[in-house]
Amino acid sequence: MIKIIVDCFGGDHSPQANVDGALAALESTRDLHLILSGDESILRKLLEGRQYDNSRIEILNATQVIGCDERPTDVIRLKRDSSMIKAIRMLRDDDSVAAMVSTGSTGALVAAALTRIGRLRGVIRPAFCPVLPTMNGGIVGVCDSGANVEVTPEHLRQFAIMASLYMENVYGVSTPRVALLNVGKEAEKGDEIRQAAYKLLTETTELNFVGNMESRDLLSGSYDVVVCDGFSGNVLVKATEGAALELMKKLKKDIYSRWIYKMGAALMSRMFKEEKEFMNYQNYGGSVLLGTSKVVVKGHGSSKATAVQKCIEQAFKMQISDLNGKIEEIICKYDHYEF
Amino acid sequence: MIKIIVDCFGGDHSPQANVDGALAALESTRDLHLILSGDESILRKLLEGRQYDNSRIEILNATQVIGCDERPTDVIRLKRDSSMIKAIRMLRDDDSVAAMVSTGSTGALVAAALTRIGRLRGVIRPAFCPVLPTMNGGIVGVCDSGANVEVTPEHLRQFAIMASLYMENVYGVSTPRVALLNVGKEAEKGDEIRQAAYKLLTETTELNFVGNMESRDLLSGSYDVVVCDGFSGNVLVKATEGAALELMKKLKKDIYSRWIYKMGAALMSRMFKEEKEFMNYQNYGGSVLLGTSKVVVKGHGSSKATAVQKCIEQAFKMQISDLNGKIEEIICKYDHYEF
Repeated sequence: MIKIIVDCFGGDHSPQANVDGALAALESTRDLHLILSGDESILRKLLEGRQYDNSRIEILNATQVIGCDERPTDVIRLKRDSSMIKAIRMLRDDDSVAAMVSTGSTGALVAAALTRIGRLRGVIRPAFCPVLPTMNGGIVGVCDSGANVEVTPEHLRQFAIMASLYMENVYGVSTPRVALLNVGKEAEKGDEIRQAAYKLLTETTELNFVGNMESRDLLSGSYDVVVCDGFSGNVLVKATEGAALELMKKLKKDIYSRWIYKMGAALMSRMFKEEKEFMNYQNYGGSVLLGTSKVVVKGHGSSKATAVQKCIEQAFKMQISDLNGKIEEIICKYDHYEF
Repeated sequence: MIKIIVDCFGGDHSPQANVDGALAALESTRDLHLILSGDESILRKLLEGRQYDNSRIEILNATQVIGCDERPTDVIRLKRDSSMIKAIRMLRDDDSVAAMVSTGSTGALVAAALTRIGRLRGVIRPAFCPVLPTMNGGIVGVCDSGANVEVTPEHLRQFAIMASLYMENVYGVSTPRVALLNVGKEAEKGDEIRQAAYKLLTETTELNFVGNMESRDLLSGSYDVVVCDGFSGNVLVKATEGAALELMKKLKKDIYSRWIYKMGAALMSRMFKEEKEFMNYQNYGGSVLLGTSKVVVKGHGSSKATAVQKCIEQAFKMQISDLNGKIEEIICKYDHYEF
């Protein structure tokens, strides 16, 4: 039985979506036990009249709520009775609890996870690794996408090792093709950090390092893992999502501008629905924080029930595949030296 | 009469597209005089039988050709008789020549421009500023997009000043809204460089600084200038272009998968053609190098005649509006101190 805590407050559609997602995950996944954190009276009301296995769910009462613009340090200090901080504390203190899922403030979650839960043996910096759909029907993981705005070459190597194992163990990608985000494909491109990282990645025999990648090729399907600092990774992921969404919005607007386009679009309605579904991040789960000593998955702030369910299933897979054990094993082979 | 050199060799469609673009610009722009650099015998052949004002065009003979994977430093040293290096030399030595347009190697062009032409008074680092179409029909300039992978806050302020004046003088955008690329909107987001730059930009009264921008909002139409280091700027521009192109490719493929979609698409063919045209960077000219003492415009390597024409018109507008004089005037108001 794997125990996972679900922080039920903090996202745009919380707590309803979080509770619905939790119940769906309970239904889809055997050997899963859930702890819902948040205001007990509200959670009890949401569970009322629902069909679920009562023995596999419990509630961790927490009455405070975290606002989306609160400073992470304030949250840790002042919101000790919030659903997120209480969940983090339980994750730290209770050996039987394996993982946590939250749709709350990213900054607060990172700060709390790093200070309260700590890192895996050998890991210098935990990093976020969201997964995006590629245009040929595959997926690609981007690590780091925002936890570390400044990095060293050794950090980048660790991100590569963690993300590669993640794609392999959770998504079944065999010998993932790992690329380094850079401003050109040639080995000597980029700043000193990138050049040194290129060398380190080449030397790391456990990795299938395929060289530098330019951001325009992210969705091409030629890569399974892209390694980068958290600043450019954040720019990469959000620019890609933003461009796709803005373009779909423009198409929709243009379709409504003439009746003949509307007729054409009517014939293609199933296709457009599929494209929309294809680009819907809700189907790809959350952004995992790799490198913390217990599994932490961050769902998008606007997660609906399906997205929450996927996040829980992700956390479950990470735990059951012993991803963290495998990460430690490889990371510890390399003495890490800082530049 | 404004004299501009067009480097006719180096792009995918050169020299034909470059010559065609040059003749089109000569037709569209009065008071323009062009110098075509490259192998004279080839250029003469391409001009043969064409209609143009013979008195406004001349040829600078250069016989060497630069390969796309040659190292910039080698190009400067070994390819002195190439169309690009000869053009740069003429730009430096001949006071009557105002500007240069090239579709050749970016690295070589930057290296040659910086070492041979030099910077405007007060400018620490010249920077690239390509322009992208926004989804509401406007445009946005991204500066720097690749000339400087490492920057200081003062560099970022200078990029903001140069790009803002560029958008105002060349594209007629009044009091351009300038944003700083960052991982979140709040002032305290990002690394120390970003935080210090935010402060500097706020203090610069000549700028209409509107705060941080996340990469997903690049095409929203809410910004006229985005300021960033060359690494993340490169990631931003290429990720945005890449996502839009990959998505259009996917739509096209999906349309061909069923006859009913093909029928629908047939009704929308004019719309799709317009979308394609809208996203065609060839219509938005080249990426100007701001901050060099003479105007340098870099066209995309795959530029066709229209793109080359736009680049020449851009260079012409930069010169006629005295953009460089205006940049010097404001930059010199601020003592630049390095961090």
